[in-house]
Amino acid sequence: MRTLLVIGIGTGNPEHMTVQAINALNRADIVLIPRKGEGKEALADLRREICRRYLANAGTRLVAFDLPERDEAEPSYARRVADWHAAIARTYRDLIARHTGEGGTVALLVWGDPSLYDSTLRILDRLEDMADFAFRREVIPGIASIQALAASHAMALNTVGGAVQLTTGRRLRQEGFPDNADSAVVLLDGETAFETLPQADYDIFWGAYLGAPDEITLAGPLHQVAGRIVEARLAARQRKGWIMDTYLLRRRR
Amino acid sequence: MRTLLVIGIGTGNPEHMTVQAINALNRADIVLIPRKGEGKEALADLRREICRRYLANAGTRLVAFDLPERDEAEPSYARRVADWHAAIARTYRDLIARHTGEGGTVALLVWGDPSLYDSTLRILDRLEDMADFAFRREVIPGIASIQALAASHAMALNTVGGAVQLTTGRRLRQEGFPDNADSAVVLLDGETAFETLPQADYDIFWGAYLGAPDEITLAGPLHQVAGRIVEARLAARQRKGWIMDTYLLRRRR
Ligand SMILES: C[S@@+](CC[C@H](N)C(=O)[O-])C[C@H]1O[C@@H](n2cnc3c(N)ncnc32)[C@H](O)[C@@H]1O
Ligand SMILES: C[S@@+](CC[C@H](N)C(=O)[O-])C[C@H]1O[C@@H](n2cnc3c(N)ncnc32)[C@H](O)[C@@H]1O
Repeated sequence: MRTLLVIGIGTGNPEHMTVQAINALNRADIVLIPRKGEGKEALADLRREICRRYLANAGTRLVAFDLPERDEAEPSYARRVADWHAAIARTYRDLIARHTGEGGTVALLVWGDPSLYDSTLRILDRLEDMADFAFRREVIPGIASIQALAASHAMALNTVGGAVQLTTGRRLRQEGFPDNADSAVVLLDGETAFETLPQADYDIFWGAYLGAPDEITLAGPLHQVAGRIVEARLAARQRKGWIMDTYLLRRRR
Repeated sequence: MRTLLVIGIGTGNPEHMTVQAINALNRADIVLIPRKGEGKEALADLRREICRRYLANAGTRLVAFDLPERDEAEPSYARRVADWHAAIARTYRDLIARHTGEGGTVALLVWGDPSLYDSTLRILDRLEDMADFAFRREVIPGIASIQALAASHAMALNTVGGAVQLTTGRRLRQEGFPDNADSAVVLLDGETAFETLPQADYDIFWGAYLGAPDEITLAGPLHQVAGRIVEARLAARQRKGWIMDTYLLRRRR
């Protein structure tokens, strides 16, 4: 039986690594490092930097590989993602079979926390269906972007006794602000869905590249800062070629 | 200007500590360690164990103190909590003034992540109003119970593209399952609010003492496992004298 370690590595700051994650990394025979394919060389760089800093086991090998790309020609979104996940699972299967034996241990380094809007665990479900080796999975939690956001704003995600909705830019745009929570945290917003809300009703706490040296944060009443966030976002994206941002919206009283 | 470090320490496993948290701890002149008052000696023990393992700065002093107790005679809940937070803020003020000078650094060790259902940051707002010294706050994120829960069940909190509601036992009991999310994570449930839901409609993923050596987890369709969770919860609470549990509910298709 092989062991697959799904290790949360935090969101851009190598010091987000927990002692548990460092120990897990050092138990691995191989660490799978995607060369690119996420469009973000920075993510690959962080993974390498983490291994450089924290990997002390001379027996652990880094296995770099090319992450399959999504077939943008496939018109159905669901199908595109499903095919892509299946291709990643096949890649994992082949790499694990080639580079580890029975009882081998494999580390996968997941951005942020593996439990939040990450597909690694679902890809392992597919791997389980297609692999001709058995494996157990072990998940090591990591600092998520929404925690880095709250920390940088020195605030809680919830109000006293209040509910918090974790949601996506797409849902916020389609459904508006949740009526049963006074705080909403938005991830995976390719654009700026907060612009579609009644601007006078919310405060926003925004952050990009959280945890990284070029972290940017902005906060205030939405009607005052929305424009500045849109500009900062655009400028940052132009400068770096990519952006990763998240924000908390809070209903004003 | 003093610095107050609000450090997330994870939820029972000392290895939840991040490198950032360990470095912050070692920057402190004093670490405030509540002696008890949370009714849970285990929490004080974890804080001490963390200092024992990770504190390398010989200049850092541990300052143990008695956390003020809530005045259970005060009939208004809001008032009871407000008075209690004010009393804690006064305690912090006096300890900080006594044990640190201008420019001193103070560490507060917060269970889990400081951004989730924790009052430390709100108490520091009160401290700011009443202290005759200035301070800046720095928050270090930590592994939260809900991440430990997801890790132990090797699952994501969200479904693909779905929303997740973070809520309390009290709200779940009063409002039922949120209609705009297919996953709900429940904290601060003194009882078993999941029993009030239509049992056939949900799966539950439950965990107690997550991260600690005596961690317990149970999962399955609510109608099958609710009774076992109620029993396990009761037995554990009797054995240890206290319980700390959280769970994810997911709408069944
Ligand atoms: C595929 S999800 C993965 C989330 C990750 N598992 C986590 O725990 O944060 C990617 C989204 O997370 C958010 N995100 C991740 N890292 C971030 C960072 N360093 N700064 C701001 N947002 C980030 C963005 O909303 C991004 O669209
Ligand atoms: C006052 S809140 C603090 C939450 C904490 N800041 C966090 O990040 O998890 C306490 C609630 O968190 C949950 N909790 C905290 N630690 C836990 C653990 N080790 N196992 C299960 N639930 C836990 C329980 O629902 C408990 O009622």
